[in-house]
Amino acid sequence: MRFHTRKWVKPEDLNPNQTLFGGKLLSWIDEEAALYSIIQLENERVVTKHMSEINFISSAKQGDIVEIGIDVVKFGKTSLTLKCEVRNIMTKETIITVNSITMVNLDSFGRPSIHGKTAIEFVKDRLKK
Amino acid sequence: MRFHTRKWVKPEDLNPNQTLFGGKLLSWIDEEAALYSIIQLENERVVTKHMSEINFISSAKQGDIVEIGIDVVKFGKTSLTLKCEVRNIMTKETIITVNSITMVNLDSFGRPSIHGKTAIEFVKDRLKK
Amino acid sequence: MRFHTRKWVKPEDLNPNQTLFGGKLLSWIDEEAALYSIIQLENERVVTKHMSEINFISSAKQGDIVEIGIDVVKFGKTSLTLKCEVRNIMTKETIITVNSITMVNLDSFGRPSIHGKTAIEFVKDRLKK
Amino acid sequence: MRFHTRKWVKPEDLNPNQTLFGGKLLSWIDEEAALYSIIQLENERVVTKHMSEINFISSAKQGDIVEIGIDVVKFGKTSLTLKCEVRNIMTKETIITVNSITMVNLDSFGRPSIHGKTAIEFVKDRLKK
Amino acid sequence: MRFHTRKWVKPEDLNPNQTLFGGKLLSWIDEEAALYSIIQLENERVVTKHMSEINFISSAKQGDIVEIGIDVVKFGKTSLTLKCEVRNIMTKETIITVNSITMVNLDSFGRPSIHGKTAIEFVKDRLKK
Amino acid sequence: MRFHTRKWVKPEDLNPNQTLFGGKLLSWIDEEAALYSIIQLENERVVTKHMSEINFISSAKQGDIVEIGIDVVKFGKTSLTLKCEVRNIMTKETIITVNSITMVNLDSFGRPSIHGKTAIEFVKDRLKK
Repeated sequence: MRFHTRKWVKPEDLNPNQTLFGGKLLSWIDEEAALYSIIQLENERVVTKHMSEINFISSAKQGDIVEIGIDVVKFGKTSLTLKCEVRNIMTKETIITVNSITMVNLDSFGRPSIHGKTAIEFVKDRLKK
Repeated sequence: MRFHTRKWVKPEDLNPNQTLFGGKLLSWIDEEAALYSIIQLENERVVTKHMSEINFISSAKQGDIVEIGIDVVKFGKTSLTLKCEVRNIMTKETIITVNSITMVNLDSFGRPSIHGKTAIEFVKDRLKK
Repeated sequence: MRFHTRKWVKPEDLNPNQTLFGGKLLSWIDEEAALYSIIQLENERVVTKHMSEINFISSAKQGDIVEIGIDVVKFGKTSLTLKCEVRNIMTKETIITVNSITMVNLDSFGRPSIHGKTAIEFVKDRLKK
Repeated sequence: MRFHTRKWVKPEDLNPNQTLFGGKLLSWIDEEAALYSIIQLENERVVTKHMSEINFISSAKQGDIVEIGIDVVKFGKTSLTLKCEVRNIMTKETIITVNSITMVNLDSFGRPSIHGKTAIEFVKDRLKK
Repeated sequence: MRFHTRKWVKPEDLNPNQTLFGGKLLSWIDEEAALYSIIQLENERVVTKHMSEINFISSAKQGDIVEIGIDVVKFGKTSLTLKCEVRNIMTKETIITVNSITMVNLDSFGRPSIHGKTAIEFVKDRLKK
Repeated sequence: MRFHTRKWVKPEDLNPNQTLFGGKLLSWIDEEAALYSIIQLENERVVTKHMSEINFISSAKQGDIVEIGIDVVKFGKTSLTLKCEVRNIMTKETIITVNSITMVNLDSFGRPSIHGKTAIEFVKDRLKK
C-alpha cells in the first residue's frame, strides 16, 4: 500500500472529547479515494458508490501526523475498488481501515461508463509516452 | 426511524463535480450518531467503533435539503448499535444508508464502560422525573 | 415549537473564551430559518429580510448538544414570519431566542413573489396526494 | 462610523442561491462587535447579550468586497452598546444594519463586571502614556 | 501604512501548538492584498504573482486581536506592488512582515492588462465625482 | 523532491475568480512544511520562521489534483531549511515554488533548541532499530 497524503491534526479536526473527529477522518478518506480514482481512471467524473465496513482501531490526538494509504483491490468494467488505511506516521499504528471502497466511473451524463483500465499506472510513465 | 437534523446543501459542501461531497455526508452521519448516542447513554464520552457497509444510493445537489435519520438496532453492554439513513426532505428519496454503526461508551480513562441502558429514552420524560 | 436540527458543539464552534461563538449560533439559526421556509413555501429562492431583537440567554460549552426549534408566526402574502429558539438538548435550558424572522419568497428575477401558502404543511402529507 | 474590517466574498461564503449567506454575515458582525468591545474595554472576556432588530437591506455576490462599520451607542456600567453597518466597499450601498448590539463585560467568574470606561479610546493614545 | 481588517484569533485558527497557524496568517494576508488591489485597480480579476521573503517575527495566541496593514510600494503598468504587516492590535507588536507582494491586473481572458492607475485613490473621493 | 500530500481542489478552495485561492495554497504549504519538520526533527514544537520569495507560476481550477513536494535544503543547528513545490499531478506543471522555508526547533519554553539531526531519516528505518 502506498501512503501519500499527510495531515497534521489541528484543533479544527477534533471532536469535543479532544480526539480526532471520526467524521473528519471519513472525509479525508473519501477525498483520497476520489482523487486516487481520478488519477487512475483519467476521468474527473468519479463517484463513491459503496464502502465496506469501517473499523476505527485507534484514535489520534491534536498534533499527531497521520498518513492515508490507498491500494487497488480490483479494476471492474465501470468501477474501481480500493482499500484504505490511515495510520499514525510516527508509530505506524493503524487508526482506521476500510477494506473496500467502490468508485464508479461516469460519463458526462452521469451514467456508469467503461473506463478501459486494468492495472495501476503511474503518471510519470504516462508523461514519457 | 426518526429524522431530526436537517442540512441545506451549500457551496462549501460540494465536490468538484458540483454534487454533495461524500466525505461531508459521512461527517454529518458521524456527528449525528455521536450526538444521538450521547443523549441516549447520558455520557459525553462516546466513540465510533465500527460502521457496516455504506451504500451511496443517490446524490444531492446545491440547494437541496437533506434530513438525517437514526434508529437504534441494539443496546449492548458497553455499546449502542445504530442505523442511519439520509434522505432528500422534499422527495423522501434515500441518499445514503448505513445499516449498523457501533458506538462505544467510555469511562473517564477511555475504557469501554457499562452504560446500563436497555431502551430508547426521551429527554422530556427524563425531565419529568 | 418543533425542534429538528441538532448540533454537537465542537472546537471549531467556540470563541476564544471557549464558549459557543455567538456568530456560529446566528449562522445556524439563519440556515434553519432558510431551510424551514424553503420546505414550507416549496420554493428554493427564499431570503432573510428581517430579524427582530435577539436575546442571548445562556451559553453552551464544548461537548454540549443543542437543538434548534422553529415555529411559524404568520404567513404573509410574499413572506413567512418565523420564530426560533435554540436550547440545550439535555437540560432544555434556552440559549437564544428570536421572536420574529421574516423570510421573503422570491421569483426567478429576485423580486418578492406571492407564495399562496396559508398554513404549515408536512411533506409526508404532500407526498400522499 | 468607522469601517475597519474588510471581507472578500468567496465561494465558501455563499448560500445555495449564490448570494452572500446571511448567517455568514451575522457571524462577521458578531466577531467585529466582540473584538471592538475587547479593544475598548481592555478585557478579553466580553460576550454578546442582545442584538436589536436586524435589517437585511441588500445582498452581496461572489467577488464583492464588504466593509464592516461599528460605532458606540452607549457606555453602560458593565456593558457597551454598539451599532453596526455592513456595506459594499465599492458602491457604499448598505447591506445590513443593526442599531444596537449589547456586549457585557465579564470578570473571571463569568459575572458582569464594571469596566470603568466612558468614552472611545484609541490604542495608539494608550501606548503613548 | 493603513491597518483595516481585524481578526479575532479563534480556536479554528490555531496550530496544534496552540499558537496562530502560520498558514492561516498567510491566507489572511493574501486575501487582504487581493481585496486591496481590487479596490485600487477597480478590477475584480487580480491575481497574486509573487511575494518577497516573509518574516515570522512573533506569534499570536487564542483571543489575541490582530490587524492587517497594507501599503503600496509601486504602481506598475499591469501590476501593483504592495507591502504588508500584521500586528497585535493591543501591543502594536509586529507578527509578520512581507516587503513586496506583486499583484497582476488581468483582462477577461486572464492576460496581464494595463490598469492605468498611478496613485492610491480613496473610494469616497471616487464617489464624489 | 518527494511529493506526498495530494489535494483535490474543491469549491471551498476557490477565490471569487473561480481559481485556487492563493491563501489556501500558502496554507497547504505551511502545513506540509510543519509536518515534514516534525517528522524529521522528532519534535512537535516546530515553527515557521522565514519563507524566501514565493513564485505563483500557474494556477489550478476546481477539480484539479495537486501534489505538494518538500525537500531539505539544509540542516542547521536549531533550524531546518526546506524548499517546496506544488504541481498539478496530471500534467506535472508547476503551480508554485518556494526556495527556502526556515523552520525552527523549539524546546518546551518556546526557545530555539538544538535538534541534533544532520540528514533526512525515514520513519521506517527508525522503527527497525
